[in-house]
Amino acid sequence: MDVGRLLIIKIGGNIIDDEKKLSSFLKDFSVIEEKKILIHGGGKLATQIAERMNIPQQLVDGRRITDAETLKIVTMVYAGYINKNIVARLQSLGNNAIGLSGADGNAILAHQRIHPSIDYGYAGDIDAVNVSLIKNLLNDGMTLVMAPITHDKKGQLLNTNADTIAQEIAKAMSAAFEVHLIYSFEKSGVLLDANDESTVIPSIQPGYYNQLKSEKKIFAGMIPKIDNAFAALNSGVKQVTIGKAEELKMLINHSAGTRITNE
Amino acid sequence: MDVGRLLIIKIGGNIIDDEKKLSSFLKDFSVIEEKKILIHGGGKLATQIAERMNIPQQLVDGRRITDAETLKIVTMVYAGYINKNIVARLQSLGNNAIGLSGADGNAILAHQRIHPSIDYGYAGDIDAVNVSLIKNLLNDGMTLVMAPITHDKKGQLLNTNADTIAQEIAKAMSAAFEVHLIYSFEKSGVLLDANDESTVIPSIQPGYYNQLKSEKKIFAGMIPKIDNAFAALNSGVKQVTIGKAEELKMLINHSAGTRITNE
Repeated sequence: MDVGRLLIIKIGGNIIDDEKKLSSFLKDFSVIEEKKILIHGGGKLATQIAERMNIPQQLVDGRRITDAETLKIVTMVYAGYINKNIVARLQSLGNNAIGLSGADGNAILAHQRIHPSIDYGYAGDIDAVNVSLIKNLLNDGMTLVMAPITHDKKGQLLNTNADTIAQEIAKAMSAAFEVHLIYSFEKSGVLLDANDESTVIPSIQPGYYNQLKSEKKIFAGMIPKIDNAFAALNSGVKQVTIGKAEELKMLINHSAGTRITNE
Repeated sequence: MDVGRLLIIKIGGNIIDDEKKLSSFLKDFSVIEEKKILIHGGGKLATQIAERMNIPQQLVDGRRITDAETLKIVTMVYAGYINKNIVARLQSLGNNAIGLSGADGNAILAHQRIHPSIDYGYAGDIDAVNVSLIKNLLNDGMTLVMAPITHDKKGQLLNTNADTIAQEIAKAMSAAFEVHLIYSFEKSGVLLDANDESTVIPSIQPGYYNQLKSEKKIFAGMIPKIDNAFAALNSGVKQVTIGKAEELKMLINHSAGTRITNE
């Protein structure tokens, strides 16, 4: 079966916060002629709006606790403001973009996170991705723009990490497409020295990854991203790349960023 | 050609603001087995959030001026919070709902309103409805939930009156379906005495409408709704009904509300 390629690109919050970078990224994204899905996180706007509304933000271990008021704000900001603005801008660039939360068309079904000691509030862990919905929209020529909001099919919206959404959609869509998953953010890739952008590791295999971890040469914040990348590869995703949003074209053709591979 | 029936139902802001009424309305809406589109307005939440964020609201002749900050808020509240919550609740009621702004899939193309003396800001007047997108989604078994936000295909989101969106979608979809347009709100229909819910006029034809207007028996706020209804009928819409959201089932089968007809 000759399945087509599907690019799934996660864009980091720092890019969304920087109008110039976002504008340049959307231009580069819009000229991709292959089937594509853009997954966006939140950026600082949700925090700013919570501050202006005097809603205190609770953090546990650096993770935001999604209480009812915070869920309201992230739903407004992620699924409303950010999602619809990206969609409108992609439309102006000639892409027939459609923005979806996980509730729309039952795109992403999740359940509220259950944790023995921490109450994460309305945080959603993903149960299922609606492959046929996404496939139909892509086959109709649409570019999907996904907000990091899911639902539980019991009427409750949930807040889900955008990296995880990218990973789960990539895994699920591998049944129908040859998926290339790209995590694009403000750094040039996985760096040997977190302060030196010239130390990008061009490719990481499982053996080398274990070595880097044991030598503590990988910045702790990158570990979940790389673990997610390997999990995606082990579930059928063809390629995973981590790199700079400004270098999107080169991330796609493997001339920049860090490629995570199983061999 | 045997075209199917399509119900286009506008729900007023007062229903959205009342959790009990909204919940009951969504239950009644969810059991409709025909193809259907729900169009929602905003309710009071946008104003409340603007107040909490200390963003002053400008009104001219009772109409809100959509400056940049107001557009941000209505995009968040209408296309984000309200739209996604309705979608999630319809999903829980067994409807495969999908929420759209006018930017999504280029559903509703508009242009910024040009007025000789008043600057309405980012208010959008509708140019085109994407009939094939809406038809495809309906034919795929989805229930559409439309937020009153449009776009100009130049990257700008715009604020558009939900009654007008309902009317324009109804007119456009009449090319493909037998459309029944229902404006549901807090009153039982068009009333002879605005303070007496028992004075519902069961049906209004153009001649009777002119008589009622000349006798000043119609509440001024209803006139744009009725004018819109006649405009819709003149553009191919089969039926227009105005009535109480709590009586949705009876509005559909013509046993409640005010029916606007050309004959």
